[in-house]
Amino acid sequence: ESAAQKESDEPYFRSYSDLCIHEEMLGDKIRTNAYREAIMKCPAVKGGAVVDLGAGTGILSCFCAQSGARKVYAVEASEAADFARQVVKMNGLGDKVAVVHSRAEDFVPSEKVDVIVSEWMGYFLLYEGMWRSVLQARDKWLKPGGIMLPACAEIFLAPITDPEYWLEKVDCWLGMQKEYGVDMSALSLHAWKSACSNVRVATLDADQILAREHKVIGFQLGSVSELDLECIKSQFEFSCMGSGTLHGFAAWFKTGFGSLHNSSQPSLVLSTSPWDEPTHWQQSVMYIERPGEVKQDSKISGSLEIKANSGNNRFLDIQLSYSVDALPLVTHFYKMTDHI
Amino acid sequence: ESAAQKESDEPYFRSYSDLCIHEEMLGDKIRTNAYREAIMKCPAVKGGAVVDLGAGTGILSCFCAQSGARKVYAVEASEAADFARQVVKMNGLGDKVAVVHSRAEDFVPSEKVDVIVSEWMGYFLLYEGMWRSVLQARDKWLKPGGIMLPACAEIFLAPITDPEYWLEKVDCWLGMQKEYGVDMSALSLHAWKSACSNVRVATLDADQILAREHKVIGFQLGSVSELDLECIKSQFEFSCMGSGTLHGFAAWFKTGFGSLHNSSQPSLVLSTSPWDEPTHWQQSVMYIERPGEVKQDSKISGSLEIKANSGNNRFLDIQLSYSVDALPLVTHFYKMTDHI
Repeated sequence: ESAAQKESDEPYFRSYSDLCIHEEMLGDKIRTNAYREAIMKCPAVKGGAVVDLGAGTGILSCFCAQSGARKVYAVEASEAADFARQVVKMNGLGDKVAVVHSRAEDFVPSEKVDVIVSEWMGYFLLYEGMWRSVLQARDKWLKPGGIMLPACAEIFLAPITDPEYWLEKVDCWLGMQKEYGVDMSALSLHAWKSACSNVRVATLDADQILAREHKVIGFQLGSVSELDLECIKSQFEFSCMGSGTLHGFAAWFKTGFGSLHNSSQPSLVLSTSPWDEPTHWQQSVMYIERPGEVKQDSKISGSLEIKANSGNNRFLDIQLSYSVDALPLVTHFYKMTDHI
Repeated sequence: ESAAQKESDEPYFRSYSDLCIHEEMLGDKIRTNAYREAIMKCPAVKGGAVVDLGAGTGILSCFCAQSGARKVYAVEASEAADFARQVVKMNGLGDKVAVVHSRAEDFVPSEKVDVIVSEWMGYFLLYEGMWRSVLQARDKWLKPGGIMLPACAEIFLAPITDPEYWLEKVDCWLGMQKEYGVDMSALSLHAWKSACSNVRVATLDADQILAREHKVIGFQLGSVSELDLECIKSQFEFSCMGSGTLHGFAAWFKTGFGSLHNSSQPSLVLSTSPWDEPTHWQQSVMYIERPGEVKQDSKISGSLEIKANSGNNRFLDIQLSYSVDALPLVTHFYKMTDHI
C-alpha cells in the first residue's frame, strides 16, 4: 500500500470523524429508511453474522441487531467508531454488535459472514472510492452465497437544460455596469467556463431532463471486480423529447437491495434520480461550454468515461464527448475533488 | 520568508483565482458600494497615484480611475489579475490602471503613492491575514501623510442567545429514536461540543444580542504596527439586558473611511454588525459548551485573545474565557481554518 494512498485516506477518514456529516446522512430519510427496510426484509440477516462496513455512528448495525442478527461487526476507520460504541451500548445491543475501530483492509473477523451491509455510495456513485473496500471485504469475509446490501447498482446519464444556473453564472457579471458603473461583461463567459470544469452536485427538476436516460453501467456487488469499476466507458445516443437549450448532462444512480430487474420479485430500490424524492446525493451535473438548441428528435451521441484520479483514487476524472445531430464532436473534462 | 509561508500562500491565492469568490464579494452591495462611495469622496484620489492591493477583478481600481486618479497600480497575486486586465481594458482605463500580477511583497512601484485602497478584511476582521501585506505596503509605498482606504477598523464582541442553532444541533440526535427506532441521544452533547470548537460564520438577528457590545480593539491603518495585531487581548464585562440563555459570543467589525469618531465630519462606515444590513462577512460566532441562563443585569466578565495560528498565519486561534456572575471562569479555544 502506497504512502500516497495513506495520504488520501487520512483527510477522508477525518471528514467522517465530525458529527456534521453523519447528521446529513441520517437526516436523509430516503437513504436511511431504504437501508432499514432492506435490512428488516433480508432473511439472511436473521440469525446470521453481518459486517457493517463504514459503520459511522452505528445505525445500520443497530438495525441488523434489532432484526435478529446473531453477530454484527461494525467496522469504522474514523473516530466516529467511538460514537457507534455509545449508540450500541445505549440501545442495549452490546452483546450482539462489536464495534471495530479499524480500516476495512486491516480488519480480520473471527468468522466469515452471511451479509455485508455498507453505505459506500458517493456522489456520482463512485466518488470517495469506498467501493474498493467493499469489494475487498466481500472477497475476504463473505461466505459463498452470502448477501451484499445493496446487491446491485446502476449509473444513468441524461442531457439537461438549466437556464436558471446559466443566468445565475452569467447575469451577475452582465449586471455590474448597471449596479456599479463598471463593465465586467467580459468575465461572464469566463464564469461559465469555470462552471464547466467541475462536476456540480445539485438537485434538478425532472422537467430539465431532455431525453430518456442512458444506463452507463449496471453491476452486481456480489460479482463485480475492482477492474470493472476502475475505468468505466460507455457510448450513448439520446433522442430529444421536445425542444430547449442543452446546457449539459446529469448523472445519477440507483442501488437495489435484491434484483433491480426481476419483476416477479420486486425489490427495494434506493434511487437518486430526478424523478424520485431528492436525497443528499442529489444529481451530478456536468455543464458544457457552449450550450445549444435541441429540438424534438435531435440526436445527441457521444461517450462518457469515468475513472479514478491518478493522484488520489478517491477523486474522479470524467471525460465526456458529445455531438448534437451533425455538429462536430466536443470533448469536456471534469474533476470531482474535495472542492465540491 | 519561510517555506511554510509560501505553503500557506499558495492555496490562499488559488482560492481567489476562481470567479465564484469574486461573484460573492461583488454581489455584496453593502461592501462594494461603501468602497465606491469612499473612493468617489476621497480628495486624495483625484489626480493622485493609488495602489489597489489585492485588486481581484479590478473593480476598485476602476472606481479610482473613474474618480480621477492619475495612476492606479492594481496589484493582484492570483490568476484573477488576468480578469482585472480584461475589465480595465473593456472600460477604456488601460492608460490609467496598470494591472500588476504580483504578490504585494514582491511589487516595486515606480513612485510613492497618495492612496492605498484595499479590501483586506476577512471573517473576524483578521482571518486570512491579508492585513500584514497592507501594512507592509503602507510602510514601503505610501507618501508621508498619504491616505489609507479604509482608514480605521474596530472589532466588537457581545454575548448572544441562539436557541435555534442549539436545537438544530441537538434535536436531530434526540429525534432518531422516533424516526428510526434507535436511541442516538447520547450523541447530542457530542454534536454540540463539536459545534463549540470552531468559529461559525452566520448572520444573527439583533435581538439575539444579550448585552451592549464591547470594543475589543480599534486601530488606525495609518499607524498600527504588525506587532499590535499579531496578538490581541481584551478584557470585557457585559451587563445583560433582559433574560435568556447564553449560548455563546459573537464578534463583528466595522471599518471607517475617515475617522469613525469625529462627529463634526461624519465619515463613511462599512459595518458588519447584526444591527446593520447583512454582508457576506456575516458575524463570527463562538458557542459555549454549557449554555446557561442570564437575567437582567447579570454580569458576564472575561477576556478574549485573538492570535495567528502558529502553523498557518492566515488562520486564527482564539481563546475566550468568561464567567457569569459569581460562577467559575470557563475557557474555550476556537480555530478559524479553511474548514469554514
